[in-house]
Amino acid sequence: MIEAGAPGTTGGVRLRKQIATRRAVEEAAWRLFTTKGYHQTKIDEIVQEVGISQRSFFRYFDSKEAVLFGDWRRDHEELARRIEKADPALAPLSAVRAAAMSTADLMDRDRLLVRTRSELTKSSPTVGGYYRQIIQPAWEEAVASALASRLGVDPDVDPTPRAVAGAAAGMLNAAVSVWVAGGCADLLTDLAARSFDVLNPPVERPTGDR
Amino acid sequence: MIEAGAPGTTGGVRLRKQIATRRAVEEAAWRLFTTKGYHQTKIDEIVQEVGISQRSFFRYFDSKEAVLFGDWRRDHEELARRIEKADPALAPLSAVRAAAMSTADLMDRDRLLVRTRSELTKSSPTVGGYYRQIIQPAWEEAVASALASRLGVDPDVDPTPRAVAGAAAGMLNAAVSVWVAGGCADLLTDLAARSFDVLNPPVERPTGDR
Repeated sequence: MIEAGAPGTTGGVRLRKQIATRRAVEEAAWRLFTTKGYHQTKIDEIVQEVGISQRSFFRYFDSKEAVLFGDWRRDHEELARRIEKADPALAPLSAVRAAAMSTADLMDRDRLLVRTRSELTKSSPTVGGYYRQIIQPAWEEAVASALASRLGVDPDVDPTPRAVAGAAAGMLNAAVSVWVAGGCADLLTDLAARSFDVLNPPVERPTGDR
Repeated sequence: MIEAGAPGTTGGVRLRKQIATRRAVEEAAWRLFTTKGYHQTKIDEIVQEVGISQRSFFRYFDSKEAVLFGDWRRDHEELARRIEKADPALAPLSAVRAAAMSTADLMDRDRLLVRTRSELTKSSPTVGGYYRQIIQPAWEEAVASALASRLGVDPDVDPTPRAVAGAAAGMLNAAVSVWVAGGCADLLTDLAARSFDVLNPPVERPTGDR
């Protein structure tokens, strides 16, 4: 719906204003999280900083947890588009791998935010719940639907799309775990490549490995 | 700790009593869930049925959700043992696959219970939260530690054990999704085999598939 407004029209102005408000909310929230602490920050304080109403806040984010994770729905849509448009010659896992590497690249750039999110995901049941119950299943579902449309199969009948999506999520998460455990010192893209190589090696695996 | 008591000793008697009480709690709970409904059943009613105290209940289960999922910690220990003891010639994913097939086989036998759990996991945030935040990460952690000990690597440095564990979880879950979507009519072991075949084919994959 947001994408509908073309630049230069009233829709375009409204769109730009929405994006600006969304960003202002995120920035104010992160300032408060950093100075006061995530748990001590109330939504009331965030909206006061931005000068908007609570109601307006909830037009952009459904909770304080949602602000912490930014515009992840848009990131998932972008990921799905990349998978659908990837070279048709690529095997399903290779198409997901290529798309997931751009996610890893974004996380490398955002590593300070990612570390904070990851620590809160471990220490806070509400943040952990938001991540594990909302974001993670949505990632797998976005990847599985994109694969299902690539392969022309029904994901409720053929386990392939969900198997590949779940496997890719597992491998990407493994890389993120190691990355965070090492203080995000390495490049996540390198760790993700190692992690994907475990089951999706870039060269044929030697005979007798199984 | 429970395993410490040998049969015939006082420890053995205590162990048998503990197992019997645990089973009685599970049976009473499932009777009530089936007749009254899961949400309408209170822990108070379960303990009344069995004739034990609330305190005694909490020695076996940490919540009503925990009763619903049975003795999953013991199942995970068994899974880890199978992976550690599997033929050293097997590649990591093949060792996990073999162990996961016995999980699938158990679920085939318990399919009525699994369907109920799965429906409640979807419809109830507390049950869904217990599954996604407690059981699922514990499964992956049990598999990853077993693999780390098999491979002699530190899972916080080398992404391999968690990558394989996460990928295996993803593939097994994909099979369970399709199984439940089809009313558990097929054999889960068949669906799980199809799902694992996607990334871990039993024969060498043809050249040019990637």
